[in-house]
Amino acid sequence: MSNEINDVDQDGSGATTDRRTLLRTAGIAGVAGAALAGSMHGKFSLAPISQAQAQTATSMPKNVDKPWWPSKWGKDDESGASNHITPAKVLDAAKWIKDGKIYKIGRVYEAAMPLFGARVFALRIPGSPTGGPFGDNKLVYHDEFLATEIGQTGTQFDGLGHIGIQMGKEGDKSEMRFYNGFTAAEISDAYGLKKLGIEKLKPIFTRAHLIDMVALKGGMMDAGQEITSADIKAALAKQNIPESDIKPGDAIMFHTGWGSLWMKNNDRFNSGEPGIGLDAAKWIVEKDLALTGADTWAVEVVPNPDKTLAFVVHAELQTKNGILNHENLIFDDLIADKKYQFVYSFTPAPIKGATGSNGCPIAIT
Amino acid sequence: MSNEINDVDQDGSGATTDRRTLLRTAGIAGVAGAALAGSMHGKFSLAPISQAQAQTATSMPKNVDKPWWPSKWGKDDESGASNHITPAKVLDAAKWIKDGKIYKIGRVYEAAMPLFGARVFALRIPGSPTGGPFGDNKLVYHDEFLATEIGQTGTQFDGLGHIGIQMGKEGDKSEMRFYNGFTAAEISDAYGLKKLGIEKLKPIFTRAHLIDMVALKGGMMDAGQEITSADIKAALAKQNIPESDIKPGDAIMFHTGWGSLWMKNNDRFNSGEPGIGLDAAKWIVEKDLALTGADTWAVEVVPNPDKTLAFVVHAELQTKNGILNHENLIFDDLIADKKYQFVYSFTPAPIKGATGSNGCPIAIT
Amino acid sequence: MSNEINDVDQDGSGATTDRRTLLRTAGIAGVAGAALAGSMHGKFSLAPISQAQAQTATSMPKNVDKPWWPSKWGKDDESGASNHITPAKVLDAAKWIKDGKIYKIGRVYEAAMPLFGARVFALRIPGSPTGGPFGDNKLVYHDEFLATEIGQTGTQFDGLGHIGIQMGKEGDKSEMRFYNGFTAAEISDAYGLKKLGIEKLKPIFTRAHLIDMVALKGGMMDAGQEITSADIKAALAKQNIPESDIKPGDAIMFHTGWGSLWMKNNDRFNSGEPGIGLDAAKWIVEKDLALTGADTWAVEVVPNPDKTLAFVVHAELQTKNGILNHENLIFDDLIADKKYQFVYSFTPAPIKGATGSNGCPIAIT
Amino acid sequence: MSNEINDVDQDGSGATTDRRTLLRTAGIAGVAGAALAGSMHGKFSLAPISQAQAQTATSMPKNVDKPWWPSKWGKDDESGASNHITPAKVLDAAKWIKDGKIYKIGRVYEAAMPLFGARVFALRIPGSPTGGPFGDNKLVYHDEFLATEIGQTGTQFDGLGHIGIQMGKEGDKSEMRFYNGFTAAEISDAYGLKKLGIEKLKPIFTRAHLIDMVALKGGMMDAGQEITSADIKAALAKQNIPESDIKPGDAIMFHTGWGSLWMKNNDRFNSGEPGIGLDAAKWIVEKDLALTGADTWAVEVVPNPDKTLAFVVHAELQTKNGILNHENLIFDDLIADKKYQFVYSFTPAPIKGATGSNGCPIAIT
Repeated sequence: MSNEINDVDQDGSGATTDRRTLLRTAGIAGVAGAALAGSMHGKFSLAPISQAQAQTATSMPKNVDKPWWPSKWGKDDESGASNHITPAKVLDAAKWIKDGKIYKIGRVYEAAMPLFGARVFALRIPGSPTGGPFGDNKLVYHDEFLATEIGQTGTQFDGLGHIGIQMGKEGDKSEMRFYNGFTAAEISDAYGLKKLGIEKLKPIFTRAHLIDMVALKGGMMDAGQEITSADIKAALAKQNIPESDIKPGDAIMFHTGWGSLWMKNNDRFNSGEPGIGLDAAKWIVEKDLALTGADTWAVEVVPNPDKTLAFVVHAELQTKNGILNHENLIFDDLIADKKYQFVYSFTPAPIKGATGSNGCPIAIT
Repeated sequence: MSNEINDVDQDGSGATTDRRTLLRTAGIAGVAGAALAGSMHGKFSLAPISQAQAQTATSMPKNVDKPWWPSKWGKDDESGASNHITPAKVLDAAKWIKDGKIYKIGRVYEAAMPLFGARVFALRIPGSPTGGPFGDNKLVYHDEFLATEIGQTGTQFDGLGHIGIQMGKEGDKSEMRFYNGFTAAEISDAYGLKKLGIEKLKPIFTRAHLIDMVALKGGMMDAGQEITSADIKAALAKQNIPESDIKPGDAIMFHTGWGSLWMKNNDRFNSGEPGIGLDAAKWIVEKDLALTGADTWAVEVVPNPDKTLAFVVHAELQTKNGILNHENLIFDDLIADKKYQFVYSFTPAPIKGATGSNGCPIAIT
Repeated sequence: MSNEINDVDQDGSGATTDRRTLLRTAGIAGVAGAALAGSMHGKFSLAPISQAQAQTATSMPKNVDKPWWPSKWGKDDESGASNHITPAKVLDAAKWIKDGKIYKIGRVYEAAMPLFGARVFALRIPGSPTGGPFGDNKLVYHDEFLATEIGQTGTQFDGLGHIGIQMGKEGDKSEMRFYNGFTAAEISDAYGLKKLGIEKLKPIFTRAHLIDMVALKGGMMDAGQEITSADIKAALAKQNIPESDIKPGDAIMFHTGWGSLWMKNNDRFNSGEPGIGLDAAKWIVEKDLALTGADTWAVEVVPNPDKTLAFVVHAELQTKNGILNHENLIFDDLIADKKYQFVYSFTPAPIKGATGSNGCPIAIT
Repeated sequence: MSNEINDVDQDGSGATTDRRTLLRTAGIAGVAGAALAGSMHGKFSLAPISQAQAQTATSMPKNVDKPWWPSKWGKDDESGASNHITPAKVLDAAKWIKDGKIYKIGRVYEAAMPLFGARVFALRIPGSPTGGPFGDNKLVYHDEFLATEIGQTGTQFDGLGHIGIQMGKEGDKSEMRFYNGFTAAEISDAYGLKKLGIEKLKPIFTRAHLIDMVALKGGMMDAGQEITSADIKAALAKQNIPESDIKPGDAIMFHTGWGSLWMKNNDRFNSGEPGIGLDAAKWIVEKDLALTGADTWAVEVVPNPDKTLAFVVHAELQTKNGILNHENLIFDDLIADKKYQFVYSFTPAPIKGATGSNGCPIAIT
C-alpha cells in the first residue's frame, strides 16, 4: 500500500483525478491499516474493505440509510438513554430491592486481563511507602499510579463518544459522525472529547433482565454465534419472564458463558465472541431499552455473520440510538441464585471527555 | 541532611553506635524528606519531626498506645467497615428511597483539579479516531489513555492499604503497619498491594447523614478549623436529626464549604482544610460508622491543631478501625434541596492492589 | 462556537450550502479550539483565525505558495537533513575534537520543568525496591515508570512527523501535509506514526556554530524579539567566525539568555521567547544546514512579529526543508569557555513512530 | 505463603520470638514474592530462597564478604566508572575515528519488544493532529505520549541506582545498599531516586572492544551458557586484538547471537540468556573497564551456573564497582564489517532520579 502511495507522482502540479482517487483509496487503507495494526496485538481479523466500497468512498456506509440525528432527546442532547432514568423509573426499580443482597457484576482489574488490541493496563505503586513517615504519629501512605485506556479495559462502560461512523470522504473529520450527529471535528480534542464525554451521562439505576443463554443453549455459546430476538423470547419464556415485563428504560444482559474464558484462555476470549446481532438490536431499540450488557468484551456477535460488517451493533445501538453498553460483566453468582431480575446500578466515573468508564456495577435484589 | 550522611565515615568497619544513630536519624529524615519533596509541589508544610522523636525512633508513634489488630472482623479480614453492609443493612437503607431522585456527589475528573503533592491526572485521546474505519459500515472508535494516581486524585475513596503507621525502626517495612496489623513487608508489591487492595471491599449501600457545617457556622469554614463531636451534635439538632438516628454501619458526611474553592482557588484549597479531629473521630468510632466523607481533600482538619500530628484522623479511622473515607465530594444540590439523609451508594472500582478508587458516588432520596 | 453548531438545524435532510459553510467554519474553530484549550494550560495566546481565512478554507495557507515535495532526498525520504551526515562529514567534524572536553548541552528532565500546554512529565519509582531480594546474594533492584510526551518535553529533538500544515479543507487528514508531502492520513496511527517516525533519522555528528546573541545584544533577549540573518552575521563577525566557515550539513545554535528563566520563572519562560524568524530561516535554508538549536522551547521567535503566523519557522525549516531542530539546550559552559565551534553529537532515541526524542546532546571540543 | 502469615496469631499481645521469626521469614518471602509475581509475567524462575538462608537473615548475602564502599572515586561519588571519561580518554578514543562511519547499536523501541517481567511500553499519539491548525499558516502538530519503565525497556543503560543488595534484616531499607554504600533509606523517593540518579553520570565516549562469541563458538550461544575470561582471551586472539590493548576506562561488548531472537521469539529470548559470569566479571574489574554491553537483556549469564545466585554479575560490576552496563545492543552491522574496535558514544538521558536511560548508543569507526 505505501509503495503505491509513494509511486504517485508528487510533482506539486496539483492533484489529478487519478491521483485523487488513489489518495482517497490510500486514505481508507491508511486509517484502517492503523487500526488493524492495533488489532494485530489482539484478537481477530476484520473483513477486508471491499474494492467496490473503496471505489465509492463517498457513498453511504452499509447499514446507514439516513441521518440518525437529531436524537429523540433533542439536538443538543449528550446523555442518550441515560435520560430514561427519571425519579419515577428509580422508584419503579427500587421495588425490586427485596433481599437486600448486592452482587458485584464487574470484574477485578489487573494487568493479566484480556485486552483489546494494543491497549494496556499498567499499575505501579510509587515507592514503598509512597510517602512518610510524617509527624510524630509517623503516618505513611501508599498511592498507586495507573496508565491505561481507562474506559476501555476490563469491565467497561461505553459512553457515547466511543463509537462513530465515517460518513463522506475517508479521513474527513467533519464527516465522521457520532451520537446525535456530532462530528469528530466538533468533539475531538487530544486531551479529552469536547462533547459526548462520559461525564455527560446520568446515573443509571434501573430494572435489569438477565438472559441466560447458557441455560437456553445447554452450554457456553461460541464465537460468531448470534443471539437473536427469538433467542431472547425463548430465554424469557424459559425463565418465566413475560416479554411485557421488559419496559422502556430497562437494561438487558446476556450470560453467554464466554466469560468463563477470562484469564483462563485470553487468546480464545479475544478471538471473537457470541452476542447479539442486528436482529436483536432492532428488538432492543423497539423496546426502548437504556442499556445492554454481557459477559463478553463487546456484547455483540464477533465476527458478525455478515463478514463485511464490523461492530455494527455498537453503531446501531450506541451511535444511532444512544443506548449504553456494559462489557465484561460477570453473572455467575446471579445465575447460581437464579436471580434474573434485579436493580442494575452504575454511575460512570465522570472523567471529563472520556469515552467510557471503569468501575464496579452492582446488581441489587 | 545529605551532607551529614555523607560526612559519616563509611569505612566499612561496621557501624559504630554513633553512626547507627545518625543513620537512623537519616532514615527518618530521608523517608520523610521524600514525602516532603512531593508535598513541595503541593500544599502545606508538615510539622518537622521533633529531635526528641528522632532520637527515640523505636518508641511508639504518637497516638498509638497498643496494637490495633486483630480487627473485630477477624485477623484475616481485609474488608474493614464495608462488612457492615449486610442484606439487612441494605434493606434498611432502601427504605430511604422515597423521591427516586439521584444526586451525583462526585466531581468531574480533569487535569485542572487540585491535586495533592506531585500527583498528576493526564488524559489523552489516542488518534482521532483511535481506530477505523472498519468494515463496509465504516465504524470508527475513540479510546482514552489515562495516567494518574487513580485512587488518589479528584473524588477519591480511600481503601485500607492507603494509610499506615511506621512502628519500630524507621525504614523497616516489617514494622510498618496497616489495617489489621498487616505490614508493608507483607502487602507491598511494585505492581499492586498484595493485601488490602481496594478490590477486597464490599459494595457500600447505606444510610448517610450529611452535616451542614456551613449552616451551623454561618459560612465556609477555614483551613485548620476543627469539627468536633459537639459541632456534629449541634448540627444534627439544627437539622432535626436525633443523634439516636445515627446507626452502626451508617455514613457521615461533612459539608464545610471548602469545596467552593475547587478549581476556583486551587492553591488555597490545597493549603489546608477544615475537618474532623480526633475528638470527632472518637465519636465516629463509638457510633461504629462505616464511612466518612466531606467536600475536602482529606475529610480531617489540616493542619491538625496539634502541630506534631500529620493526618492522624486518617490513621485513627482507617488504619486502626477500618472505617472508609470518601474525599472531594460535592453536596451543593443536596444542601439546596435540604436533603440531609439519603442512601449513599458506591462500590469501589476493583482495581487489584489499588489503594483507593475513582468513580461517582451517588446519593439517592 | 458550540452554540452555533448546536443551532444548526440538524434535521437529517442533508446539509444545505449554508450549513456546510458553517460546519466548515466550525471545523476550523473546533480543531483550533482543541489546541487552544491545551495552550490555556501553558503559555501564549495565538492570533485568532481571521474571518477571511475561515471563509476561504480551501485556499493556500499563508507562507505556502506551492507544494514543497518531493524532497531533495527523493520522494520516499523520511530522514531529511540527517542525510547530510555522511562519513566525509563525520571525518570533517571530528577534526574539531582538540581538547577532548565534552559538554552536556541537554537539561535534566524533571517534573518541575516548564512544559508546553497540557504536557506532563510524571516519573514514579515502583516499589522500594521494585524487585527482590532475589537469590542468596539478595539482589534488589529499582525501576522507574515514566509517563510523558517523551519527545516533546524538556530538551527535545523535533523529528519530521511533528509539524505539518493543514492544506485544503479543515479537518481533512488527506490534506494535512508533513515533510516530503506525506499526509496525516498516511502517517497517522494512534500507536505511533507510520511514517516520519523519529527512528528514521540518521545519527547526527556534525560541526556546530554557536551564535551568542546575549553578547551581541548586551543581555538576555526578550520574548517576541527576532533574530535576523543580519544578527547572525554580526554575531559571527564578533566571534571571529567567517560566514564562509558555515558549511552545508552544519548545525547552528542560538544562545539568547532566555534559558536563564528555566525553573526560575516558568510562566515567563512559557509566555513567548526570542528566536529566529522567517528571514533567518531563509538564510539557514540557503546555507543548507542540518539542524537548528537554542536555549528556548521553540528556537523560533514567539509570538511571530506577524501576528497571523503561528510557529511558521517550524514549518519553514522542518516541514518544507527537513531541517531538524533541538530545543531547550543549555550553552552556559560553552559560553564561559568561549567555545563557539564544536562537534554536536546526538542520535535520537529510536522510538518507533515518535515525533521527537528525549536524550542528552553533547558538544565535543 | 500468605496462608502461613495469616495463621500467625495476631493477638496484639506483642510479637513472640516464634512470631518474629515467622514474620521475618514472611518478610523475605513477601518481598521476594512480589518480585516473583512480577517475573511470572515474564521469563524465568529464580532459585528459591534456601531455608537456611531464610533462617539467618542477618548474615552476609552470598558473594559479599565485606563492605564495598567507599568507592575509589570518593565516598560522595555518584558517577562511578563514568569518571574514567576524561579529556585524555576522549582524545585517545577519537583516534579511532578513521572511516567516519557511524553505526546505531541501539534497537528501535516499540511495544512488541521483549520486556522483562511486568514492564510495559505504551506509546500513544494524542489526537490527530495533537494540536492545530494554528494561525493563518495553519500549522498542525503531533506529540506522542509514552508510559514505560523508561530506563529499563528495550536498549537500556543501567545507572547506579538500579541494582543493590539487601544487607542485614530483610525489608530494612537502612540496610539495603547500593553503589558506594548508599542505602535505600537514603536514596529512595517515590518520585525519583534522591541519589545515584542517571543524571549524575558523565558522558561516555570511549574505546570499545567487541567480543564476537558467535564466531568463537561457531553459532549462537544458549541460555545459561557462560562467557569466561578464557573465552574473552580466545576471542581477542582470534580477532587479532592483543589483550594489552584493553585499557582502563574502555568498554567491552559481547555479541552472543542471542539478539537474533529479538521480536522473533520473545519467549525464548526472555527465558534466560548467555553471558558473562563472575569469572569474566573479575577480569573486567581487574582491567578497570568503564562499561559492559551485549546483545542480551542482562549482559550476564541467566540463569547463573550457581543456581542460588540471581543477577550476581550486575551486583559485582555495578553495585560494588560502579561499572556501567548497556543491554539489548545490536552489533550485526559491525560484525558484518569486521569492526571489532570503535568509539562507543552514549550520554544517558539525564532523567532526574531515574535508574537507567533509553537512547541510541553509537559506534564510530
